[in-house]
Amino acid sequence: MLSFINDYCEGATPEILKRLEETNLIKTVGYGDDEYCASAAEKIKKACECPEAEVYFLTGGTQTNMLTIDCMTRPYEGVVATVEGHVNTHEAGAIEYSGHKVLTVPSHDGKMWAEDLKQYIVNYFADSSAEHIVEPGIVYISHPTELGTLYTKAELQALRGVCTEYNIPLYLDGARLGYGLMAEGTDVTLKDIAELTDVFYIGGTKVGALFGEALVFTKKNMPHRFNTRVKQHGAMVAKGRLLGLQFDTLFTDDLYLKIGKHAIDAAARLKEGFKEKGYEFFIDSPTNQIFVILSNEKKKELEEKVVFGSWANLDGDRTAVRFCTSWGTSMEDVEKLIEIL
Amino acid sequence: MLSFINDYCEGATPEILKRLEETNLIKTVGYGDDEYCASAAEKIKKACECPEAEVYFLTGGTQTNMLTIDCMTRPYEGVVATVEGHVNTHEAGAIEYSGHKVLTVPSHDGKMWAEDLKQYIVNYFADSSAEHIVEPGIVYISHPTELGTLYTKAELQALRGVCTEYNIPLYLDGARLGYGLMAEGTDVTLKDIAELTDVFYIGGTKVGALFGEALVFTKKNMPHRFNTRVKQHGAMVAKGRLLGLQFDTLFTDDLYLKIGKHAIDAAARLKEGFKEKGYEFFIDSPTNQIFVILSNEKKKELEEKVVFGSWANLDGDRTAVRFCTSWGTSMEDVEKLIEIL
Amino acid sequence: MLSFINDYCEGATPEILKRLEETNLIKTVGYGDDEYCASAAEKIKKACECPEAEVYFLTGGTQTNMLTIDCMTRPYEGVVATVEGHVNTHEAGAIEYSGHKVLTVPSHDGKMWAEDLKQYIVNYFADSSAEHIVEPGIVYISHPTELGTLYTKAELQALRGVCTEYNIPLYLDGARLGYGLMAEGTDVTLKDIAELTDVFYIGGTKVGALFGEALVFTKKNMPHRFNTRVKQHGAMVAKGRLLGLQFDTLFTDDLYLKIGKHAIDAAARLKEGFKEKGYEFFIDSPTNQIFVILSNEKKKELEEKVVFGSWANLDGDRTAVRFCTSWGTSMEDVEKLIEIL
Amino acid sequence: MLSFINDYCEGATPEILKRLEETNLIKTVGYGDDEYCASAAEKIKKACECPEAEVYFLTGGTQTNMLTIDCMTRPYEGVVATVEGHVNTHEAGAIEYSGHKVLTVPSHDGKMWAEDLKQYIVNYFADSSAEHIVEPGIVYISHPTELGTLYTKAELQALRGVCTEYNIPLYLDGARLGYGLMAEGTDVTLKDIAELTDVFYIGGTKVGALFGEALVFTKKNMPHRFNTRVKQHGAMVAKGRLLGLQFDTLFTDDLYLKIGKHAIDAAARLKEGFKEKGYEFFIDSPTNQIFVILSNEKKKELEEKVVFGSWANLDGDRTAVRFCTSWGTSMEDVEKLIEIL
Repeated sequence: MLSFINDYCEGATPEILKRLEETNLIKTVGYGDDEYCASAAEKIKKACECPEAEVYFLTGGTQTNMLTIDCMTRPYEGVVATVEGHVNTHEAGAIEYSGHKVLTVPSHDGKMWAEDLKQYIVNYFADSSAEHIVEPGIVYISHPTELGTLYTKAELQALRGVCTEYNIPLYLDGARLGYGLMAEGTDVTLKDIAELTDVFYIGGTKVGALFGEALVFTKKNMPHRFNTRVKQHGAMVAKGRLLGLQFDTLFTDDLYLKIGKHAIDAAARLKEGFKEKGYEFFIDSPTNQIFVILSNEKKKELEEKVVFGSWANLDGDRTAVRFCTSWGTSMEDVEKLIEIL
Repeated sequence: MLSFINDYCEGATPEILKRLEETNLIKTVGYGDDEYCASAAEKIKKACECPEAEVYFLTGGTQTNMLTIDCMTRPYEGVVATVEGHVNTHEAGAIEYSGHKVLTVPSHDGKMWAEDLKQYIVNYFADSSAEHIVEPGIVYISHPTELGTLYTKAELQALRGVCTEYNIPLYLDGARLGYGLMAEGTDVTLKDIAELTDVFYIGGTKVGALFGEALVFTKKNMPHRFNTRVKQHGAMVAKGRLLGLQFDTLFTDDLYLKIGKHAIDAAARLKEGFKEKGYEFFIDSPTNQIFVILSNEKKKELEEKVVFGSWANLDGDRTAVRFCTSWGTSMEDVEKLIEIL
Repeated sequence: MLSFINDYCEGATPEILKRLEETNLIKTVGYGDDEYCASAAEKIKKACECPEAEVYFLTGGTQTNMLTIDCMTRPYEGVVATVEGHVNTHEAGAIEYSGHKVLTVPSHDGKMWAEDLKQYIVNYFADSSAEHIVEPGIVYISHPTELGTLYTKAELQALRGVCTEYNIPLYLDGARLGYGLMAEGTDVTLKDIAELTDVFYIGGTKVGALFGEALVFTKKNMPHRFNTRVKQHGAMVAKGRLLGLQFDTLFTDDLYLKIGKHAIDAAARLKEGFKEKGYEFFIDSPTNQIFVILSNEKKKELEEKVVFGSWANLDGDRTAVRFCTSWGTSMEDVEKLIEIL
Repeated sequence: MLSFINDYCEGATPEILKRLEETNLIKTVGYGDDEYCASAAEKIKKACECPEAEVYFLTGGTQTNMLTIDCMTRPYEGVVATVEGHVNTHEAGAIEYSGHKVLTVPSHDGKMWAEDLKQYIVNYFADSSAEHIVEPGIVYISHPTELGTLYTKAELQALRGVCTEYNIPLYLDGARLGYGLMAEGTDVTLKDIAELTDVFYIGGTKVGALFGEALVFTKKNMPHRFNTRVKQHGAMVAKGRLLGLQFDTLFTDDLYLKIGKHAIDAAARLKEGFKEKGYEFFIDSPTNQIFVILSNEKKKELEEKVVFGSWANLDGDRTAVRFCTSWGTSMEDVEKLIEIL
C-alpha cells in the first residue's frame, strides 16, 4: 500500500543515522551542554546570518509552541493566532494547559493578515475594560501554514511592522520550514526569518530528523533561566547531544535545504499528475502538502490502494483530502500514485 | 579523560542503532499507534508476566513522573515520596508545575519504609482539618533509589500492603530498572514489580536506549484519554515508532537484562578496586552507582584524570562523590580507573 | 451626578444589613458549615423545587465560573460558550488559567442556539484527529445573557436536549438571575432552571447582596471534595456564615424576586423614556441593562451629567452605550435621567 | 455553650457595620477604584509610616498568600517557609496549584531562624545541579506565627539581612497582625514591618472585619498589572468599596490596634486563669491563641461546656488544644471559662 499520509512516517535521512553510529560511544555531558549542540548552534546561526542568535533544542512541535509561548509572555497575556493555527486546533489545549488564552484572528488560506492583527490590538487598547481582558502578548504564525501556504517577504514585514509598533514579539512555527524555504517562487530566506521574527523554530521532526526542533531566539531575548523552565515542563532531554548531532548533520552542506528541495520536487510532480488527471485542488498550496477535492466515492476507491489524510468534509458529498510528500518520498512512489489516479 | 559521570552520556546499544537503520524507510502511522509499539508492548507484557498490562511510551523520566502523577491523582491530591525522591529534588518543580504537592516522608538510605508511609496516612485521616490539607493520592518510590539502593521483595510487599489498605496507588520509577533487576542478591523481578505496583516505568534512556521510558499500567488503570493528556502536556512524540523500535529491541532475547548485567559487573569490579585501595563508601549501593568518600584534596587530584560527580559535602573537608557505570562502560576503562586510584 | 453605570455600585438591600447586625456577635463555625448556610440552602432548594439540590456559596462571578468549569470537567476538556460569553471575554483568562480552553459558537443577540451547539459537538466527534483536539466537556450559558437578553423555556429545553444526547453538563451563569426571573413576558422559572441545567448559580453580588453567589448542583453531581477544590483555588471564605445570612435573607419572603422586580420596573420606565425621546436601541433587551445608540456628540453631552457605560463603537461616529438599573435604583433618579435626555 | 474555637466566628466590630449602613446607597465604581479604598490606603500608609507603599485589598488569607507568592516569583521559583508555615500545611495545596513548590526550613516554635534560611540559600547556590532544582524566590513568614509566637525586631532584621544579601523578597503574612502588634513586650511596630519586608498583609478577617486583607507592597514593587492577575485568579471583588470601607474604619482612630489590645487582654486573663488552675502550656504563646495540654479525659469533660480546637496528639493520652480570643470575646465569657476549668 502506498502512503502519503504525512511527513513524519519514516525515520531520518541516512546521514543522520550514520552520524549517530559514528558518535555512539563518545561520552558527552547531558542536557544540551555538549559539543554537538554547540556546533549545531553555530551552523544554524551562520545559516541564519544572525550571530546574536541563541539556539535551544527541543523534541516536538507542540512542546516547543507551549514552552515558547509560556516563557515569552506574562501570565495574563495570550497568544494571537489565526483560527486555523496549530496552537488553536491540534494541540489538545496545551497552550491553555500552561495558562494562556489563544486569541484568534481570521485565517486567509491559513495566513494572518497584518491589518487583522493591527485591528485586534487596536481594539484591545481601546477597550475600556482592558484590565479584565486577556492582553495580546505574542503573535504566532506558521510558515508554511497549516494549509501549506507561504508568506511573502512583504507580508512578513507587514506583520513585523505591527509587532514592532505595539512591542509584541513575533513567533514563527517552522515545523515544515525546510519545505517552505525551498518552495518554488518563495522570496523568504532563513536570514529574513531570523531578522523579522523575535523567535522561531526550525522543524526537524518533519524535515529529516528522527525528532527535534531548533528554537532560535534572534534578539538576545532567550527567556531567563530557560533551561530550568524546560525541565519544569518535563521537556528536557537527558541525552541532549542527540538533538545537536541531528541538527549539526542537517546544517552541514545544506542538507536541510537539499532534503527540503526533494520533497518540493516530489510534490510538484504529484501536483502535475493531479492536474493532468483533472482533479480539483482545495487550495493552491506551494509546499509539500497537496490538498485535493475528491468525491466520497472516489475517496473510497483510492483508500484501497493509498493511505492519505482527510482534511475537511465539503458539500455535495465531497471531501478535501491531503497528500503529503517528504524528504523520504521516493519519486517511484509518486509515479505509482499518479498512475492509480 | 576517563568518564564515569553518569549513565546517560553515550548513545544506545548497537542493536538499537542497527534496528533503526533496518526500519528507517518503512512508513508507519504516528503517535505510538504503529506495529513496533504494539510489538514492544507485547514483549514487555510477557516479560512482566502481566497480560492485562497497558504500555505507553514516553521520552524522559521527569516527563513520565509528571504525567503519571498528574493523571493518576485528583487535582487536590499530592504524591508521597521520600525527601530524597527525584520528584522532590531534581525535577525543577515539575510536579508542582502540574499543580500537585510533594508530601515527604523520611528517606532511609533512599528507601521509603512502610511504617513511615502508614503513619503519614493515618495522621492525615486523623487530622480534624483534613479538608484544608493536601490528601495523599499516590505513592512514589524508585527502584533502584536515587542512592542506588534496592528494595527487597518483602519491603515492596509491605508498601503494597499499606497502599492497598488505604486505596492509594503505588507508582515505581524505574529509571535504572535494568541495573536493579540484575544486581547481585536482589529478589525482586519484573513480575514482582508488575504485581506489587499499580503503575511503573521501565527506564530506557539510562539503560541502553537513545531515549525513552515504557510506562506500564498494571491494573487496567490507564487513565481515561491518556494520550490526549500526553499531547496536552506537550509530551507526545510524532514518530512514536522510535520508542517502540527501541523497546522492542531491548525486550528481544533479554537484551535489557544483559546490558543491565554488564553495568553491574563493571560496577562490581570497580567497587572491588575501591575496596582494595582502601577507599570508604558513602553508602553501600548494590547497583551501578558507586558512592565513595574522598578528601577534597584527593577529589581535586582525581578530577584531573576522571570525570565523576559530586554528591554531597561532608564534614572534615570531604565530599561524597559518585562513579557511574552503564551498559556502555568498557571493562578497559574500569581497569584504567582502578589503576589511577 | 446621576449614575446608571452598572448593578454593583451600591451596598446591599437594607434587610441584609439588618440581618448582619442582628447576628453579628453570634458565634458560628466557619467555612460554610454553619446554620445560616444550611438554612439558606434549604430555602433555595424550596424555591427551585429541587429537593436533591446541593448548594455551595462563593463570592464572585468569575471565581464561580472558574471553579465550576474546572471541577466539572476533565483536564483535557473545554467549555463551549458563545463568543460573547463572559468566560470568553471579561475574565482576564481565568478559565485558561485553570487549564481549560473556551470553545466558541456564534452569539445570537447573546444567546447560544441549540443547532450551533449540536453542530459543534457533531463536528468534534466526526474529526479523525479528535485525540488532538480539545473535547467539549461542559456548556456555558448565561441568563440573562451578557446583552441582557433571555432564553425562552423552549430554547433552554432545546439546549438541554443536545446536552443530554451527548452527555455534556449544562451550566447556567445567573449573575443577574433575579432580573431575568422578573422580566416581563419570561416563561422561565427557577424550577425550570434547576430542572433543565446540571448546575447553575444564583447571583447575589448584582442582585441585592454585598457579595456572594449561590452555586446549585441539581443532579446529585457536586464534584468530589468540592470544598477542598475551593480552598485550593484560594476561594474559601472563612466566615462562610456571611454568605449564608445574605442568601437566607434574600430567599425569605421572596425578597430576591421583589428586588428583581423593582429593577425591571425601573428599567421599563427608563426604556419608555428613551422611546419617547426618540432614541434608538442597540438591542432589544428585556432586563435591567438597556443598550442605546448615541451619536458621539450626544454621548459627550450626557456624560457631563450621568455616569453610564460604553459598550461598542459603531459606524458613523456613534457608540452603543449601556444604562443599568438595579435593586438600588430610585425611581426618582430614573425620572431625572429621562428629563435630561 | 461557650466558644473559644477561633478568631473568625463572629461578624465584625460594630463600627464597621455602622459604616456599611451609612454608605449603603452611595454609588461608587467597582473593583477597588473607589474613594473608600483610596482613603483606607492612605490611612494604612500613614500608620506604616511608609509613603511609598502600594495597598491592594483582597478577601482571604489563602488567596492573598497564593496571589502574592505567584505574582512575586518567577514560574520556576519556590517559596521558603517553615514546615509549620500555613502555606505548607493548611492551604489545600493552593501554592502548588499555582505552580510553585514550598521549600521548607525548620520551625522553631513556629519561627524561622535567619541561619537556617541562609544555610538553605547557600546550599542551593552551591549545588552543582542547581538548574534542576527549584530556586528560592521568596521567603514567607507569619507574624504572629501559626503557633501564636512573635518575632523580635532583631530577629526580623536578621531575616531581612539574609534576604537583602541574596536579593530574595521577604513576605510577611499578618493574618493576626493586630494581635501581634498589641502583645505584651513586643518591640515590632507596623513601621518596622513595612521597613523590613518587601510585602506584607494586614489581616482583617481575623481582626475585626467581616472579610478582607490589606496587602501592602512596601518597596515600589507591586507586580506589573497586579489587578489583572487578581482577576485571572478569580479573586477580584466587584464591590471593592466594601474592603475599602472596612479598612478605612479599622484605621481610623487606631481602631485596629484597640480591638487587637482587647483580644490580648482577654487572652492574658485567660492565661492567668489557666496558670492558677495548674494547667500546663504546650507552648508559651504571647498573642491571642493559647495552647494548653489536657489529658484526654479532661478534654472530654471540657468539651461538654466549651468549644475549642484540638491542635496535636501527644504521648501519654494527652492532647494539645487551642483556646482563641478575638476582638469579639467578652470578658464575661473569659471569667465563665476560668470557672469551669
